[in-house]
Amino acid sequence: MEHITSVHNPRIKAWKKLQRKRERDRSGLFLAEGRHLVEEALKSEVQVKVIIIEESVELPPEWQVSDVEVIEVPEKVLRELAETETPQGMTAVCERPDRHNLLLESGRFLLLDRIQDPGNLGSILRTAEAAGMTGVIFGEGCADPYNGKVVRATQGALFSMHVQQMDLEEAVDLCRENGVPIFGTSLSGSTFTAIAPQDSFALLLGNEGEGVDEALLEKADQNLYIPIYGRSDSLNVGVAAGILIYHLRGD
Amino acid sequence: MEHITSVHNPRIKAWKKLQRKRERDRSGLFLAEGRHLVEEALKSEVQVKVIIIEESVELPPEWQVSDVEVIEVPEKVLRELAETETPQGMTAVCERPDRHNLLLESGRFLLLDRIQDPGNLGSILRTAEAAGMTGVIFGEGCADPYNGKVVRATQGALFSMHVQQMDLEEAVDLCRENGVPIFGTSLSGSTFTAIAPQDSFALLLGNEGEGVDEALLEKADQNLYIPIYGRSDSLNVGVAAGILIYHLRGD
Repeated sequence: MEHITSVHNPRIKAWKKLQRKRERDRSGLFLAEGRHLVEEALKSEVQVKVIIIEESVELPPEWQVSDVEVIEVPEKVLRELAETETPQGMTAVCERPDRHNLLLESGRFLLLDRIQDPGNLGSILRTAEAAGMTGVIFGEGCADPYNGKVVRATQGALFSMHVQQMDLEEAVDLCRENGVPIFGTSLSGSTFTAIAPQDSFALLLGNEGEGVDEALLEKADQNLYIPIYGRSDSLNVGVAAGILIYHLRGD
Repeated sequence: MEHITSVHNPRIKAWKKLQRKRERDRSGLFLAEGRHLVEEALKSEVQVKVIIIEESVELPPEWQVSDVEVIEVPEKVLRELAETETPQGMTAVCERPDRHNLLLESGRFLLLDRIQDPGNLGSILRTAEAAGMTGVIFGEGCADPYNGKVVRATQGALFSMHVQQMDLEEAVDLCRENGVPIFGTSLSGSTFTAIAPQDSFALLLGNEGEGVDEALLEKADQNLYIPIYGRSDSLNVGVAAGILIYHLRGD
């Protein structure tokens, strides 16, 4: 097992750069931090390239790591790569899955418009995966799905979810051509419970402050609204996603 | 307007202690940090005792603050009281509303069993308020509803939500006696969509890792389950709360 002891080691410095979107986009790599995420990445179709592990920590013998490089480091080096205060003894360098483009022909899709909070995005991806959604489209202006905070907030669901970046106008047009009904979310929409569950649908969710872009709402087949009975003016977008996804998919 | 310039001022030191649960319980006071929360507190039935405001910041003239003490401080003093890195120019010392006990006779109630993450609790309170729930019961082992992180995560919904701490066994027994149906949440429950909306109900939500306590589940009239179609083993408890609350309340 290789051992790296310095934070100035060029490989460590290169991996640290994966905390930035530009470097993730350039390299096609991202970081999965913490024991739980590394384990989930190994079990998924995501390719784990390198596990960086603290000297005092042991890899569980049941983990399938025969084709993974494992590098031991002192705590200070792991800390250098870590984005959380408690990286739980390890982090992994992973390769983004190289997936075919989503065709938007049939299935259940989320279309995300400028959702910026990594916690919200992670929560939405976790719910989408649990609900068996076909894919999640990230429009321009969303936080990067491979941002470390998003990855951690998905609790590993990102590794098995089909995620794709696409222009939302194009995505909506494709859904329309393919007969996939498009539901926007808007304060002036219809109460969501009036809509029956759907085998195929595309659900548009929007920015935390501004909601879904007006031009996109106009292209939707129908806009949905979750009634508010209290004084709040809205729900958290991750909670709204859960309510609408589970209603639209039915059983 | 009074002006305090030292972090060693005894009033500042006393208010800083409100970051701790013991001192909040002793005094009946709590902190609402940031411009948005202070505004929401002023508009609610929560009594705002003191607003501590940074020297360079002005109180909006339309705010109703005639019976509120306002104290100007330099940034370093505000920072001393703040729990976030960007306290947005002000924080307020507020009094917990002195509410009558929830009778659990009829209405829609949440019963929270050892939910510990302040972000989850805040999200649940925000959803409960938006959905017009009657009250939220915090069982033992939950984080404190007046914890600063919870308060901030509710985005002000805490101020108009009836929140009460109570032994959950007692709460469940009271619901039973009053004919309020009790729904637990459990991986071995019935699919939630099989249950019709209810005028009155009590919904039990449980700890992030362990779920609802077994003894409580046995006392429930029925246990509900949100089907998982993906590889995840569960949903976030705040998202699950939203799905179940909106399903059970119906229109």
